[in-house]
Amino acid sequence: MKFKSPPVNSLSLDFITELCISLEKLENNRECRGVIVTSAVPNIFSSGLDITEMCGKSMEHYAEFWRAVQEMWLRLYGSNMVTVAAVNGSSPAGGCLIALSCDYRIMVQNPKFIIGLNEAQLGIVAPFWFKDTFVNTVGHRVAERSLQLGSLHSASEAHKFGLVDELVPEEKLQEKAVAVMAQWLALPDHARQLTKSMMRKAVLDRLVAHREEDIQNFVNFISKESIQKSLRMYMEMLKKKKS
Amino acid sequence: MKFKSPPVNSLSLDFITELCISLEKLENNRECRGVIVTSAVPNIFSSGLDITEMCGKSMEHYAEFWRAVQEMWLRLYGSNMVTVAAVNGSSPAGGCLIALSCDYRIMVQNPKFIIGLNEAQLGIVAPFWFKDTFVNTVGHRVAERSLQLGSLHSASEAHKFGLVDELVPEEKLQEKAVAVMAQWLALPDHARQLTKSMMRKAVLDRLVAHREEDIQNFVNFISKESIQKSLRMYMEMLKKKKS
Amino acid sequence: MKFKSPPVNSLSLDFITELCISLEKLENNRECRGVIVTSAVPNIFSSGLDITEMCGKSMEHYAEFWRAVQEMWLRLYGSNMVTVAAVNGSSPAGGCLIALSCDYRIMVQNPKFIIGLNEAQLGIVAPFWFKDTFVNTVGHRVAERSLQLGSLHSASEAHKFGLVDELVPEEKLQEKAVAVMAQWLALPDHARQLTKSMMRKAVLDRLVAHREEDIQNFVNFISKESIQKSLRMYMEMLKKKKS
Repeated sequence: MKFKSPPVNSLSLDFITELCISLEKLENNRECRGVIVTSAVPNIFSSGLDITEMCGKSMEHYAEFWRAVQEMWLRLYGSNMVTVAAVNGSSPAGGCLIALSCDYRIMVQNPKFIIGLNEAQLGIVAPFWFKDTFVNTVGHRVAERSLQLGSLHSASEAHKFGLVDELVPEEKLQEKAVAVMAQWLALPDHARQLTKSMMRKAVLDRLVAHREEDIQNFVNFISKESIQKSLRMYMEMLKKKKS
Repeated sequence: MKFKSPPVNSLSLDFITELCISLEKLENNRECRGVIVTSAVPNIFSSGLDITEMCGKSMEHYAEFWRAVQEMWLRLYGSNMVTVAAVNGSSPAGGCLIALSCDYRIMVQNPKFIIGLNEAQLGIVAPFWFKDTFVNTVGHRVAERSLQLGSLHSASEAHKFGLVDELVPEEKLQEKAVAVMAQWLALPDHARQLTKSMMRKAVLDRLVAHREEDIQNFVNFISKESIQKSLRMYMEMLKKKKS
Repeated sequence: MKFKSPPVNSLSLDFITELCISLEKLENNRECRGVIVTSAVPNIFSSGLDITEMCGKSMEHYAEFWRAVQEMWLRLYGSNMVTVAAVNGSSPAGGCLIALSCDYRIMVQNPKFIIGLNEAQLGIVAPFWFKDTFVNTVGHRVAERSLQLGSLHSASEAHKFGLVDELVPEEKLQEKAVAVMAQWLALPDHARQLTKSMMRKAVLDRLVAHREEDIQNFVNFISKESIQKSLRMYMEMLKKKKS
């Protein structure tokens, strides 16, 4: 599965909806036992949630958007398939979440590529299930520090504390991802799936149990004037950076 | 305590029952404050649960066997004594669980010796309390990956991520285990026991609360024809390997 | 904030009460966004809870003392401010808890300085919320082993497993603490505080929910004759050491 939504694979409502539909199709296709997630856009895996979906829109739109983001995570983190993230570019915020939701993360060792949950830098807060996914991957202390600082880590740093499992040169990424997939597919599906579910169920169930409440929290938070102002400033900054 | 049930110290119902009785006696013996668990069989610590107990037997037998396995873990993980595993051979599946349930793990640095919870390789699933014990030792992420792949780790690898605490040459194992025991016994029993209980109680209580349900799950799972077939194939493979 | 209660900054009821009042004032002062905690006494950060408050006193006194200790932790671990511990000396037991409760720990790299939750060495048990704070920082396994052995770790060792975040030479400590504070203050307060609360709330809430029960446990435990005897012996030993 190759993300191709130039310029930066930002996770718009349309993009996420399409991603969810694709995941559902693959999940229901008995011939498909695994999926490699990567990017067709140079230097970027995914820039994360599309800020324009969270800025200057209606409460209904925010709610719809957030439900789609939840759906994406529930499908990916809870997938019965083997999921390998081949991270061939930077991967902040929601992009990092996609990588974290896979079974295995391989990242290109390029000093320019960064990854992390940097929400705090934008004045917003990663929801509890982003946090749970992060804690399950890197442990409580690393998550606490990284989330509070909104850190974006270099590939090397991310590898050091286990945010990614392996680093490879760009030209080896495809080959490595296929090899990892083969290794995971060598296991009997049934045993692997039950084991995966045992590891992830508590955290998945937590969102399922609090889904509407989480949407309401998001809508209330994001529609605050102070937050809207932060996001507008952030978008201005991005625009200036581009030009 | 030396496991001596050649050829591979497999955990049969008889073996486990005897182990539980021994642990109970030691626990009630006020002169015994600690126990070192090791193997009298060369190259193997314990090969894990005896597959013949899980294959071609009655539902009643499966239930009785599983209750014994639970009992072994409850006694060992919840022991008031200091428990040191002197792992002088390979230690897959249930053998690994015994090591994980001790307070400290010393393993012989021999490239041939492997350790891990490899249930998924056999098409079966480690129960939640194996998983909880594993997560408490190596953290969520390492456990998630290792359990899904059913990995058997070399002693060096196991040491790197904390599945064992220390590596020694074979001839130093006994001496080292005694030294570690002395270090742990230097603490006041009462404070050490309360602290140990504080660390392990949540996970122990979880099995106690769901014990009958866990037995039922095991019996239902293991008596499935597909699982029985996997186990028979695995035993065939072991037999061929031997001859 | 500089601890100055010679000879060893022991956490007496008066000291803790004053600390809580200071923290409350700073918390309510909108101009104060962060606090660096350090010691004005050479070679010691804080020696931990004052044993004289736990020895030969009334049940009422023990209860009052324990409530103050709880209050100190609730304020510090749950602070909305950025809290940096500049650990410029040894920091056993309650001293270690203060450091653990901050957002970031910098320790002077001096082979004589030690840090850890050594309660078990004194024949007492760290309460569950000391344990929760420790587990959130170093993970379950390191905490289990260190708490049971009542280990006091050198600065280097503490750094290796994440009990402290960074080591510096003594003359750089102040400068480094200020730099770290600046880094954390660069984040928008609101997002940082909500993120911090998300990470720590479960553990804080647990004490709040069981506060009276925890006081009762402490009073019952500490007033046992066997425990009182241990503490008297420990104080005798300290006196002899001094003279």
